[in-house]
Amino acid sequence: MGMIGGGRGAFIGAVHRMAAALDGEIEFVCGAFSSDPEKSKNTGEDLYLPSSRAYTSYDKMFEEELKLPVGERMDFVSIVTPNFLHFDPAIKAVEKGFSVVLDKPMTLDLEQAVKLNKAVNQSGQIFALTHTYTGYPMVKQARAMVAAGEIGTIRKIHVEYPQGWLASKLEDTDNKQAGWRTDPKKSGMGGALGDIGTHAANLSEYVSGLEISEISANVNIVVPGRLLDDDVDILLRYNNGASGTLSASQIMAGAENGIKISIYGEKGGIEWRHRTPNSLYFRLPGQPEQELRAGVEISYLAPITLKHCRTPSGHPEGFLEAFANIYRNFALTLRAKLDKTSIDPDYSDFPGTRAGVRGMAFIEKTIESSTNGGSWLPFVI
Amino acid sequence: MGMIGGGRGAFIGAVHRMAAALDGEIEFVCGAFSSDPEKSKNTGEDLYLPSSRAYTSYDKMFEEELKLPVGERMDFVSIVTPNFLHFDPAIKAVEKGFSVVLDKPMTLDLEQAVKLNKAVNQSGQIFALTHTYTGYPMVKQARAMVAAGEIGTIRKIHVEYPQGWLASKLEDTDNKQAGWRTDPKKSGMGGALGDIGTHAANLSEYVSGLEISEISANVNIVVPGRLLDDDVDILLRYNNGASGTLSASQIMAGAENGIKISIYGEKGGIEWRHRTPNSLYFRLPGQPEQELRAGVEISYLAPITLKHCRTPSGHPEGFLEAFANIYRNFALTLRAKLDKTSIDPDYSDFPGTRAGVRGMAFIEKTIESSTNGGSWLPFVI
Amino acid sequence: MGMIGGGRGAFIGAVHRMAAALDGEIEFVCGAFSSDPEKSKNTGEDLYLPSSRAYTSYDKMFEEELKLPVGERMDFVSIVTPNFLHFDPAIKAVEKGFSVVLDKPMTLDLEQAVKLNKAVNQSGQIFALTHTYTGYPMVKQARAMVAAGEIGTIRKIHVEYPQGWLASKLEDTDNKQAGWRTDPKKSGMGGALGDIGTHAANLSEYVSGLEISEISANVNIVVPGRLLDDDVDILLRYNNGASGTLSASQIMAGAENGIKISIYGEKGGIEWRHRTPNSLYFRLPGQPEQELRAGVEISYLAPITLKHCRTPSGHPEGFLEAFANIYRNFALTLRAKLDKTSIDPDYSDFPGTRAGVRGMAFIEKTIESSTNGGSWLPFVI
Amino acid sequence: MGMIGGGRGAFIGAVHRMAAALDGEIEFVCGAFSSDPEKSKNTGEDLYLPSSRAYTSYDKMFEEELKLPVGERMDFVSIVTPNFLHFDPAIKAVEKGFSVVLDKPMTLDLEQAVKLNKAVNQSGQIFALTHTYTGYPMVKQARAMVAAGEIGTIRKIHVEYPQGWLASKLEDTDNKQAGWRTDPKKSGMGGALGDIGTHAANLSEYVSGLEISEISANVNIVVPGRLLDDDVDILLRYNNGASGTLSASQIMAGAENGIKISIYGEKGGIEWRHRTPNSLYFRLPGQPEQELRAGVEISYLAPITLKHCRTPSGHPEGFLEAFANIYRNFALTLRAKLDKTSIDPDYSDFPGTRAGVRGMAFIEKTIESSTNGGSWLPFVI
Repeated sequence: MGMIGGGRGAFIGAVHRMAAALDGEIEFVCGAFSSDPEKSKNTGEDLYLPSSRAYTSYDKMFEEELKLPVGERMDFVSIVTPNFLHFDPAIKAVEKGFSVVLDKPMTLDLEQAVKLNKAVNQSGQIFALTHTYTGYPMVKQARAMVAAGEIGTIRKIHVEYPQGWLASKLEDTDNKQAGWRTDPKKSGMGGALGDIGTHAANLSEYVSGLEISEISANVNIVVPGRLLDDDVDILLRYNNGASGTLSASQIMAGAENGIKISIYGEKGGIEWRHRTPNSLYFRLPGQPEQELRAGVEISYLAPITLKHCRTPSGHPEGFLEAFANIYRNFALTLRAKLDKTSIDPDYSDFPGTRAGVRGMAFIEKTIESSTNGGSWLPFVI
Repeated sequence: MGMIGGGRGAFIGAVHRMAAALDGEIEFVCGAFSSDPEKSKNTGEDLYLPSSRAYTSYDKMFEEELKLPVGERMDFVSIVTPNFLHFDPAIKAVEKGFSVVLDKPMTLDLEQAVKLNKAVNQSGQIFALTHTYTGYPMVKQARAMVAAGEIGTIRKIHVEYPQGWLASKLEDTDNKQAGWRTDPKKSGMGGALGDIGTHAANLSEYVSGLEISEISANVNIVVPGRLLDDDVDILLRYNNGASGTLSASQIMAGAENGIKISIYGEKGGIEWRHRTPNSLYFRLPGQPEQELRAGVEISYLAPITLKHCRTPSGHPEGFLEAFANIYRNFALTLRAKLDKTSIDPDYSDFPGTRAGVRGMAFIEKTIESSTNGGSWLPFVI
Repeated sequence: MGMIGGGRGAFIGAVHRMAAALDGEIEFVCGAFSSDPEKSKNTGEDLYLPSSRAYTSYDKMFEEELKLPVGERMDFVSIVTPNFLHFDPAIKAVEKGFSVVLDKPMTLDLEQAVKLNKAVNQSGQIFALTHTYTGYPMVKQARAMVAAGEIGTIRKIHVEYPQGWLASKLEDTDNKQAGWRTDPKKSGMGGALGDIGTHAANLSEYVSGLEISEISANVNIVVPGRLLDDDVDILLRYNNGASGTLSASQIMAGAENGIKISIYGEKGGIEWRHRTPNSLYFRLPGQPEQELRAGVEISYLAPITLKHCRTPSGHPEGFLEAFANIYRNFALTLRAKLDKTSIDPDYSDFPGTRAGVRGMAFIEKTIESSTNGGSWLPFVI
Repeated sequence: MGMIGGGRGAFIGAVHRMAAALDGEIEFVCGAFSSDPEKSKNTGEDLYLPSSRAYTSYDKMFEEELKLPVGERMDFVSIVTPNFLHFDPAIKAVEKGFSVVLDKPMTLDLEQAVKLNKAVNQSGQIFALTHTYTGYPMVKQARAMVAAGEIGTIRKIHVEYPQGWLASKLEDTDNKQAGWRTDPKKSGMGGALGDIGTHAANLSEYVSGLEISEISANVNIVVPGRLLDDDVDILLRYNNGASGTLSASQIMAGAENGIKISIYGEKGGIEWRHRTPNSLYFRLPGQPEQELRAGVEISYLAPITLKHCRTPSGHPEGFLEAFANIYRNFALTLRAKLDKTSIDPDYSDFPGTRAGVRGMAFIEKTIESSTNGGSWLPFVI
């Protein structure tokens, strides 16, 4: 694995590295951590890389790595830059024969996403988008239970993603995270919508197995002077006729990173909360609520869930493990491709280009609905 | 107190009686429990009333009670019939000089509500509408904290009221509750909207001190063949510019009676959940979340909160106590009127006709918005 | 009902009155609220009693009430005085033909308890001791499930009762509650042990259906200068060979009234917490934890549980309702006796003299074990 | 790092490897995974080790690794074998100049522990014992708050460690974990006591900063025919006069791995539960309970806590991260030693030989007290 971005002090770069390291399936061999040569070199040293493989640009990295023999060169690149720096390295990577793990959202806008999608498909490279929440074992369990019909035909989906860290105008301080995430040139047209709204939309589609088909939205800039939305409420319809809501906000002062989803069908309901990620709540009328728990030995879990647990029940796993599940599956899928072997489909379960393209379209369509007075708009892509 | 409705087997009648009895401030003296003379008489016996005061109609009850001397006759009437039987006994009661406690929603439609409002105001009688959730001590605490500016100017309100008991077509069985609540002739034009949506709207306005000013709604009939809505999702704007959502549903199979509200302002947020009614969660950025608790001795609670607690912290109070707070306050207010004394305003804090009229208008406007493709409609009354 | 004690400002007297009033089965007709005639009179007025029936002593009350015709006179007396004033009014009441509801613990010492037990049995009067926690519906459910063998033969019982209100030397202030509860002359030889330890012991025996048979204890006076224990930890053995712990403390600074019990058998376990009294947690190996909920309509509950619920699930009931269940059952049992009818045994389920005698013996034996270096002592009575 | 034990299918070996890999500070270079050459080789292949460094015995591993140049050879060994195979490889490792990470409990008996302690001290090697729970950030926060006097002088400690996996006689099946853990020859004289009781005792001492000074215990074999204890309840006194309880059980059918500790002092109390490891509950009289949360950006956390978080609040960390904190600190401490640099003491915070020796003595003293009828025994080492 080589990394693009993720220099000293970058939160998400460190997360990607820990996630990639956890399962011992991925060797971290090089990086273009920063356009500042000194900084890239220092980061490389921090990470015990040979100085020759701490590059000053991803173009250079692609060029030099291709000179190395297969087996020694990096097999894939992990791109952890801000949104506006997703498209160019990603499309170059696949065109040059590297597989890609890309932080979400996919690109700066829908047009780029469509192009990248096409390029990935033509290249035959493996591509993963880190919609982390789909990596949690109990999210996979929820999906499996819905697919097995345990709650019946879905009628209702509520998903919410509250955060509070942008409740004040943090972008006016030297906070780098706040800076680029509220800057349309670096983030694209969605603020909270792109940063966390796409996670919520992706989660609802992943667990339900449905697709959002209509949107009626209220997109707000709550903090005065901010350039991008920081709060959205959306009414949704899904392609089976189910309805629901999606709320994502970064101005809920004092709130944590509390993504949560509840889905109700004709027969019952399930609920998953990031706050207690190793539990899944299952409700059937006239029966006690059940709390299903993650754990390698839990016999009532679906096979796919068990394959994404590392510890026995009662040994909590968290965000890094969910992230690592995406990396592990990506690595196994890539290895199967390289080795020309087949792979258990449960291990190739990670978000790809379709999730990415839908995410970018979701941003644009939500803003369009809100701009048009909240009227219902069809969402098809 | 006299009661109209609430014959044997009626859930809400028994709740009203227990709530009225709890604090020893109200004597239960008569009732017109049923239009069936035998049933009314039997209910009277069950309740240890003299047979002479178990009436066969509320008209009869008004007539006979007026013959009794003041002090012996009932001072007020508690009306616990289905919605379509609210307006007539209520307006007659106030016109004949009785105060009224009325189950919500106020009437069958907005027109009746406006008329009743006028009649109550002209009569000078005391009138309470049992929006129970405003009777909980920690809901009053939430209102007091918001009013004191502890979370700053409100930006965001999310309120939800999930129920699951109408997930199947229960009205086709002999379930009386389901029967009248899904029947437009008995309930009015709102189903879940009137039954629980009005509770949620009232709670949001009570706690925030704001008023809903715009509505963009999606009103659903989920169970095929049902005549009234059983599920609504609403985007809201409030009169200070805050926005939010309101979801109320009776088809969330397996869900309990889980009304919940969270409000975020510039400075922080609060959350109250019916599931844990004696707690209020308070969040400020950069500080640990606090769990405030009800209890007569808790020094950090607002004076109004303490006046609505009966037990020390750690001794849970519940639904009946919240209900009893409305009755207790109503009784104290009525006694002050009768005794021509003044009353601590904290004790005259209960929902009245304005809440009732706004509730009926909320039902109509929500349906109008949904019918008009979810477009935003102004809500002013 | 007549009341002894419970003058203005007394916490537990008000609780008894609300509990007695809730279900409309008991008429409150007289009281000897205080040895101070003025205070007793004022309390009577507060409670809307005729001045003739606010007595200045319980002896006077017994005398005068007996002059009234049956049906008008009080049928039973509720005794809510400090421990040292339990025995005399209680034994006189039963000897004069009144039934009794008595606050716990039963008496000042075991000797009194044994005498009172004998007197009650000889009198044929109905006697209830307010071990409130056994009045909670989900505690009854726990007992029913254990009795039905749902967790198999019991192996392990942990019960804890943490409070924090005596973490400082509150008895040196003018706090009346703290004053008498830490005074051996008024409370007897147990402090926390008598006040809350007996609740915990009673709860463990009630739910398990077992009896404590051996005690190894550590009884502490933590706050310097206090005269009675304020903290105890006890190892227990039960009469089927099960073992466990009981901790009761009033010095856990910041803790609420958090009684909690967990019981494990060969097949599974249950847990009930006062903090969430309407839930019962049920665990079986290899299955998701279940959260059983109180509610009049919950079909999986035992018949006895349903008979002690007043509201549908999701409408929380609390401490007063649990207390009211004892009063309601006591009233129904007394009425059956007066009416010479039979009664459903589920409605005569309330703690009586045996619970009281065992509680007093538990206090004495626990202190004896602690004094003897924590050695195991047999507990048989 | 080299590993001893941890062949295919061993739970704890995989945990150690993931924990060591997470932070990118440790390179995994060799192992003696099994005494079966084939199995050791296969495990090495699974882990992408060169076949030359998958050894068939730890003696061989020590010998061969010592032939390699410093920098290439392993710096330390991670020992993840059953208890009876701790002492020999550990003492040989330190004597040959390797540092050691050792799974707990330290050895088979106290005598071995004392010897190993001496050998480690003489060798100057770095030694870590994986009492995992002390690696959780909020456990470190608890310790820091106690040390800072935020709850005042400690009066009371309750620690419990319930498990249910040995509720039936699992050792009669082919479950390897159950087999050796219930076998005195492989586990030593403690069953549940050694496996989880030592964790609980260590946690109580770590957080409180106190030492257990007296023990009154009840040690049980609940499952008939089992050879080692599977359930213990212990009354404890600490060296400042505080008292408390410790319960550890593996027969609580249906229970998870729910270690939990609550500590109360003169001023307030704290509680940490493994079920919600990223939260710490803090109680002060007269104030709302606070829920402190882990997270790299949480300003109210102690410096040592922040150094053991990897993600922002709301991104749950779990068991592997706690384990990794021990490995990370061990690695930094070892590197500082090798580089002859100094180290921030917060990074050298991990359990060492003293914790190990106390753990072994705790097992022996607890059994002695129980055998002697539960009498209090002094505990000094």
